[in-house]
Amino acid sequence: VTERVLVLGADGAGMSAAHQALRVAARTGRRLEVVVLERSGHTSYSACGLPYWLAGDVASGDALVARTAAEHRERGIDLRLGAEAVGIDLDRRRVSVRYVDGAAGDEPFDQLVVATGSRAAVPPWALAADGRPVPGVRALRTLDDGAAWLATLEGAAGRQPRTGVVAGGGYIGLETAEAFLRRGLDTTLVTRGEVMGSLDPDMGARVRQELVKAGVTVLHGSEVDGVDVGAGGAVAAVLAGAHRIPADVVALGLGAVPNSGIAAEAGLAVGSFGGLLPDARQQVADGVWAAGDCCESTERHGGRRVYVPLGTHANKQGRVAGENLAGGDVRFAGVLGTAITGFAAGGVHVEIGRTGPTLAQAAEVAADLVSLVTESSTSAGYMPQSSPIAVKVLADRRSRRLIGMQIVGGPGSGKRIDTAAAAIWGGMTVDDVAAMDLSYAPPFSPVFDPVQIACRRTADLLDGDSAGR
Amino acid sequence: VTERVLVLGADGAGMSAAHQALRVAARTGRRLEVVVLERSGHTSYSACGLPYWLAGDVASGDALVARTAAEHRERGIDLRLGAEAVGIDLDRRRVSVRYVDGAAGDEPFDQLVVATGSRAAVPPWALAADGRPVPGVRALRTLDDGAAWLATLEGAAGRQPRTGVVAGGGYIGLETAEAFLRRGLDTTLVTRGEVMGSLDPDMGARVRQELVKAGVTVLHGSEVDGVDVGAGGAVAAVLAGAHRIPADVVALGLGAVPNSGIAAEAGLAVGSFGGLLPDARQQVADGVWAAGDCCESTERHGGRRVYVPLGTHANKQGRVAGENLAGGDVRFAGVLGTAITGFAAGGVHVEIGRTGPTLAQAAEVAADLVSLVTESSTSAGYMPQSSPIAVKVLADRRSRRLIGMQIVGGPGSGKRIDTAAAAIWGGMTVDDVAAMDLSYAPPFSPVFDPVQIACRRTADLLDGDSAGR
Repeated sequence: VTERVLVLGADGAGMSAAHQALRVAARTGRRLEVVVLERSGHTSYSACGLPYWLAGDVASGDALVARTAAEHRERGIDLRLGAEAVGIDLDRRRVSVRYVDGAAGDEPFDQLVVATGSRAAVPPWALAADGRPVPGVRALRTLDDGAAWLATLEGAAGRQPRTGVVAGGGYIGLETAEAFLRRGLDTTLVTRGEVMGSLDPDMGARVRQELVKAGVTVLHGSEVDGVDVGAGGAVAAVLAGAHRIPADVVALGLGAVPNSGIAAEAGLAVGSFGGLLPDARQQVADGVWAAGDCCESTERHGGRRVYVPLGTHANKQGRVAGENLAGGDVRFAGVLGTAITGFAAGGVHVEIGRTGPTLAQAAEVAADLVSLVTESSTSAGYMPQSSPIAVKVLADRRSRRLIGMQIVGGPGSGKRIDTAAAAIWGGMTVDDVAAMDLSYAPPFSPVFDPVQIACRRTADLLDGDSAGR
Repeated sequence: VTERVLVLGADGAGMSAAHQALRVAARTGRRLEVVVLERSGHTSYSACGLPYWLAGDVASGDALVARTAAEHRERGIDLRLGAEAVGIDLDRRRVSVRYVDGAAGDEPFDQLVVATGSRAAVPPWALAADGRPVPGVRALRTLDDGAAWLATLEGAAGRQPRTGVVAGGGYIGLETAEAFLRRGLDTTLVTRGEVMGSLDPDMGARVRQELVKAGVTVLHGSEVDGVDVGAGGAVAAVLAGAHRIPADVVALGLGAVPNSGIAAEAGLAVGSFGGLLPDARQQVADGVWAAGDCCESTERHGGRRVYVPLGTHANKQGRVAGENLAGGDVRFAGVLGTAITGFAAGGVHVEIGRTGPTLAQAAEVAADLVSLVTESSTSAGYMPQSSPIAVKVLADRRSRRLIGMQIVGGPGSGKRIDTAAAAIWGGMTVDDVAAMDLSYAPPFSPVFDPVQIACRRTADLLDGDSAGR
């Protein structure tokens, strides 16, 4: 018999699940029919690349498409674009579908993969009275968003925007601010707390200072609570507390919301972030799997539920779901919350890396923490490319385990977070990292890598030798 | 009572030992007098920075000095420059000293640290009949070498060199070839085997192709066996088998030789590389310690003796020696052989990282290995800075442990080796690396980091799924 696998969503998680299921089935001789339903007209594209398309680094939206629909189909997947799942009946094993042409249908499944992704958070102030976004206000989440933004920035609306406001100081906010600045917009970033809320505030402040140096106006500790519209109904200014900031365009960088609605309506549990709650095998119910941005994830150490909508996890979780539904038995090993971004505009180049919990997050679960910020340089101090780097280490005082790291620094800083991620992944201590054999040559590092120096200092601090190395 | 600690050599290993001993003594109340004897007139400088001084990146030799003699003395170290240890009497606990002014003396010790470093290997063909180097032929090992090279390259000998030969295709060879090319010399690199002998030949060949692209003439599988001198006695050409290569200057990049002579004469054991053989506490005899380039090191996994003369190990080993001689009990945790370098000239930018044994080295100790080269890109493929990167993974087939990695690729490639080094340090498998939470954003990485892709593919290969991900 052939089992029918229905996948909802054709981005990273869904397509990884689909391909892995077929791969395993080919190996084991199991017979699977894999049908993927995708609401939009696109599949497998890099949402993370959208800000760079806006900035002018990427030639076209097509360049962001990792694999075309045709390529997926060649590999044996029955991919249906413009097909939105609008209801799941777990008992009858059927999904109700609405097609882009208005038709409706019903698809049976033996096994189901929910990979419906996430959408941009849109606050009430961004919506006009008709419930649609105020013209000039938009998130940057989909290929369609990207195309619309590009048209706007190139003056398609009959005016060349000169002022831009970015609401939100996280990854997308920062990257969009870079794109705005590089396109010559007078740019203001408004963020509720400190810039880069996924960092501790002291590290976020370092990023903010670089943005300001680059010429971005930063309103931190402030929140957009309204817009003024002009004669044509398009946005004219943003209101944030007592501030009124002229704005020809407003980008929404206020985070992502899991698309878990139809799964929740079908009776599947969602967590405090609104995401589905798969087990380590990515299963949410008998024969029902979930992966990617529509799910909450589990921290590798401690097992706390977190919401980290990132392509890396989506792909891995999809692969796990696909392997298991085809008869395998593998587990998603959890997340650390590793992330990287940068801001390169206005003569500034700052890179940001982070992994593990922030100090505030860690304090919720661990009693006795030590944290230390160590400043060093990206290269040997005498090299022309040497630039400052600050590394914040978070460690458990008793076990001396490294539990988190945050990096803010010049070119070459960000990817260093992977060394810490590997160490945390393996449960290593700050002493382990201080002892490690890491690479050194003057163009690339001081004699000891900044990550290692920071762990060495933290170890010394734990030893009570605050004089350090 | 005050114990007298005598340190031979005032570079990384010796000064780390001296400072750490004083630091521990200050904490524990132990009374130590620390005397450091240094043959040369310099202390604590970055030998690794010399090629970049030549290339023009570093303003002066002084910039390479990490800490001046005065700074060391301010911290309580009795540092004596121009004082060469010429004999060690372990029974009488005395070192014979010859001073730069011709005087001789005798220094007693309670504990001794041998940190005499290494010297450049100088082959017979590089020496004139009087036993001194042929004018125009020189290594690049000391500050004095650096100053002499700079003078030569700037035409101090009355002629502006136009052709340069580099003998040796390792780190120093590559970096010196870069310096030559950047100074406009017609540059030839002669190397016995493949370029970068610390890589497997297939990866070394990738580096060679980049050098050739940049305009370096590479003679590989060839060895310099003589020189022709001109009228004034200076070098005019290099002979390598059937080749005669015109050469106004010749740089020796043929490796380092441990300065273990006086220690060996005193009866201390040396290994097959000619280096001292300290235990994990850096002890070589009762109250006698050794650290840095005069020593062989121990591989972290397997315990094989290797010779890896690098500042990173020297500093760590010195610190371990200093801590232990002052009453501590710490251990040097071994080396992986992690290293990085690059070549950036002639429109080429290639970076090289390596850690763990090569395939040939690993095959000596492990029976069943798998190795795989995976090509990917340094950034998301659609980003302008994306460039090719090749990652070679070496893993144990049975345990699936990652045991080595080699990377050759464009800007941003080299430092990725640290992720592998951390994983190997912690004894992780290729599956662990494939599952890890590493950082991703389009300017910095494809969705999966090249290191991770390479481990994923290797894991798939081990699974018999050669179709890969």
